[in-house]
Amino acid sequence: MLTGKNYIGCALSADGNKTFTTFNPRENKENQQVFFEASTDEINQAVELAHLAFQTFRSIDSHQKSNFLKAIATEILALDNSLIYLVMQESGLSYERVINERARTLWQLQMFADLLTEGSWVEATIDTAQPQRTPNPKPDLRKMLIPVGSVVVFGASNFPLAYSTAGGDTVSALAAGCPVIVKSHPMHAGVSELVASAIIKAAQKTGMPNGVFSHLNSSGIGVGVQLVKHPLVKAVGFTGSISGGRALFDLANQRPEPIPVFAEMGSINPVVLMPDALQKRSREMAKIYAQSITLGSGQFCTNPGLILGIKSADLNAFTQHLADEILLTDACCMLHPTIVNNFETNKEKMRQQKNVDTIVSYERAVKKNDGSALILTVDGATFLKNPQLHQEVFGPFSMVVQCDSSEELETILNQLEGQLTGTIMAEETELSSYQNTVEALQNRVGRIIFNGVPTGVEVCPSMQHGGPYPSSTDSRFTAVGIHSIKRWVRPFTYQNWPNELLPKALQNENPLQINRLVNNVFIK
Amino acid sequence: MLTGKNYIGCALSADGNKTFTTFNPRENKENQQVFFEASTDEINQAVELAHLAFQTFRSIDSHQKSNFLKAIATEILALDNSLIYLVMQESGLSYERVINERARTLWQLQMFADLLTEGSWVEATIDTAQPQRTPNPKPDLRKMLIPVGSVVVFGASNFPLAYSTAGGDTVSALAAGCPVIVKSHPMHAGVSELVASAIIKAAQKTGMPNGVFSHLNSSGIGVGVQLVKHPLVKAVGFTGSISGGRALFDLANQRPEPIPVFAEMGSINPVVLMPDALQKRSREMAKIYAQSITLGSGQFCTNPGLILGIKSADLNAFTQHLADEILLTDACCMLHPTIVNNFETNKEKMRQQKNVDTIVSYERAVKKNDGSALILTVDGATFLKNPQLHQEVFGPFSMVVQCDSSEELETILNQLEGQLTGTIMAEETELSSYQNTVEALQNRVGRIIFNGVPTGVEVCPSMQHGGPYPSSTDSRFTAVGIHSIKRWVRPFTYQNWPNELLPKALQNENPLQINRLVNNVFIK
Repeated sequence: MLTGKNYIGCALSADGNKTFTTFNPRENKENQQVFFEASTDEINQAVELAHLAFQTFRSIDSHQKSNFLKAIATEILALDNSLIYLVMQESGLSYERVINERARTLWQLQMFADLLTEGSWVEATIDTAQPQRTPNPKPDLRKMLIPVGSVVVFGASNFPLAYSTAGGDTVSALAAGCPVIVKSHPMHAGVSELVASAIIKAAQKTGMPNGVFSHLNSSGIGVGVQLVKHPLVKAVGFTGSISGGRALFDLANQRPEPIPVFAEMGSINPVVLMPDALQKRSREMAKIYAQSITLGSGQFCTNPGLILGIKSADLNAFTQHLADEILLTDACCMLHPTIVNNFETNKEKMRQQKNVDTIVSYERAVKKNDGSALILTVDGATFLKNPQLHQEVFGPFSMVVQCDSSEELETILNQLEGQLTGTIMAEETELSSYQNTVEALQNRVGRIIFNGVPTGVEVCPSMQHGGPYPSSTDSRFTAVGIHSIKRWVRPFTYQNWPNELLPKALQNENPLQINRLVNNVFIK
Repeated sequence: MLTGKNYIGCALSADGNKTFTTFNPRENKENQQVFFEASTDEINQAVELAHLAFQTFRSIDSHQKSNFLKAIATEILALDNSLIYLVMQESGLSYERVINERARTLWQLQMFADLLTEGSWVEATIDTAQPQRTPNPKPDLRKMLIPVGSVVVFGASNFPLAYSTAGGDTVSALAAGCPVIVKSHPMHAGVSELVASAIIKAAQKTGMPNGVFSHLNSSGIGVGVQLVKHPLVKAVGFTGSISGGRALFDLANQRPEPIPVFAEMGSINPVVLMPDALQKRSREMAKIYAQSITLGSGQFCTNPGLILGIKSADLNAFTQHLADEILLTDACCMLHPTIVNNFETNKEKMRQQKNVDTIVSYERAVKKNDGSALILTVDGATFLKNPQLHQEVFGPFSMVVQCDSSEELETILNQLEGQLTGTIMAEETELSSYQNTVEALQNRVGRIIFNGVPTGVEVCPSMQHGGPYPSSTDSRFTAVGIHSIKRWVRPFTYQNWPNELLPKALQNENPLQINRLVNNVFIK
């Protein structure tokens, strides 16, 4: 079923000489399928085809585009267990997790299909003419969001389905009317090819132009660099490391025509434990945090890697409970030996920092490529002085910072780099006395959580997944939810345009029956 | 009344050694007032004070913020003729033009004051909890737009009021809840100081925190560079040249923490003359275009610098009429001798390009610093090959490109750089036969106009002022209208937050009575 080839639109292609394979971390062996890296010719063909496809795709009827997205969901579902098992083989993720991630992927497709059917997302804004106005007549002006052009998507290592080939970036860009070129993640190139085949089938069945989707392989950075530099590429979506995201961001901004890059680059997701909460429920909190830290071997961008509290017997009790609870968890497989090796290296680097103590190290015999959790602790003053301690350790890891005072805690929050999330564990009664702490945290994050865990990113309109740099490259956008479409669209205004030649969203009769702002009043 | 000093919050300060003066182009002489460039200390003080002010300003009640904006309008109006005459002295603009620009500035303040009072601009989005959902309960999530932090604004040379100190960038940033530091434009530093004094008074009268607004002078680029590099600055607004805007954009992206720069950098605003329209009304079109090209000495970013048509006797008739009409216009004063010199140099450079002919050169004796209009013409093939001919000539200038065919015209449009506007002069009946031409133009611009002129940027919600690079640095935003506030805000989500501690915009009871998306349905 797999070919290892690239999709240039609907055509399979393998012109290049470089090949690579994927790896099964659970069985600790190479997978058999050989993948062909895209050549420069193939890259250019894919981008040029996308540009051609854009000329028709951009103005295809919303309902037809919606059917395309629903057809992708149908085709992914039709891949059935061949897809599920391949995800497991290429990522080490559990059956249940993969089933859940597929459900999330299908839900995202459905959500954008519904958004297109409903239609108000284009933010139609109309100001009608006032020909009699003095000194100058007021023209008729009508604005809506239109697609920016071809988008390149880089999939995430840790979400082979929901943040990869047919994941959030791809589906929001297609919904916007932008052709997409996916650079497959080398760790799950097979999964990516299967999903790409589903997208191609769906495109063909629903009459989409050839080139609306292409799929290119590579094990290194060369293909991605060429894609981002191509003049006909107009935006980039990326989920991954800070170094990777920043490199693409820099490339894109150095182009003669700079283009937007939305890179979601993870974070350490600070959690603040307030005194009353610590006093009342340190055991309960330790339990849910042991679960959150080790969930999926800690391989989530919202993994709580930093826990802050004020020194106290209750905080000590919490760390003791956390140690106990961590030892009760089961270790589980990480995505790839490279991820395991980086995890071990980064843990060791943290452990060797000055004044850092170990709360618990998961030393039980674990299977090859399983992640062994580590919880460290350090005092607030040391943490403040040592930026190394602020770095993300991707895997089941967290650092408990014991502050001398609420002022020190606040100073730490103010000096933290940007984060996807921040969490406050507190009694409701004490929340208002820590207003400064809450505001300091709010300034550094995209989402703030009360008495919960940051892991578990709900896919819904009110989700913000993104935040101040470096958690993302542009805090003004989200990678999750319907508003993620805004990354790929630009406002466009028609002045005095004949009514019958306007897009339906802007015609007088409001044929699409969408919500519009007309002469500064919201009406339908 | 003028001091030449900087405002660090409400305190006047002149610590630096460098000074400069402004120039009266109409009387061709230096103005008397000496201005003090901001020192590094003053820059740091202003930014740190803004950061402090942000902690309170961000959460000040909308109505209070709205009153602040209205008070700015009142204080500007109170400056009365002292402001009007100073604008004329520092820019050479006419009395009528300055009165109009002041009206526009006041209208912008009122528009944002109204936006804040109405309140729905925060895009409140709510998904209520489903505690019983399996396998995982759904949390309560509530999202709204919040300010990004301190914003630096660089005023425009050509709009001393409406796009400068209290212009669109400043007012949209203040409305968003961001403190603003204005780097005054050196050509009208006196006007900028007067307007700054009005903003400071308004801030004091309406109880805004000190530092919500600061105002720094400089004749060169040093102060701006330091501001953009300062870690506590979180976004930048700029209106001016491509070289200036790109330099700031590059600086901002090279920071350890990159920040968004919205630079509106002008364009040549292509106008396409369709055959039937040329046949029916070449004289009428020549008349309105002669007016548009020479309006305000051509010193508008939407000045029509490029006119495209297919070779024909009708196009020849148009160019002849255009020449006649240009000679009937009155020359008027340009902003500054530097602008006049650049205009003369750039005109000469264009005139010396291969295959370029002069349609009309305004040779009547003009006053010192008046702009002498020039209209050139060239064939399509030459225009395509010579990128120099695509450059903006700031002033009363336009280039008529005579194409061999509609295909050549379309090729030219496809190869043009990004533009603020594009215009189609056509009979309604012929518009549908040139669908490809219209789409090619749409791809390159932010606003498309039917049978009109690009000059005259209406301030209303449906206006898009911005476009593909290099007309702006990010086509996803606008510099004009209520949606320009989106440049300075980021979505922020509260998860499971206690209702009474939420911002009012997100509370269950909807106390602000704003439009919200609740469980994916728009309700009030």
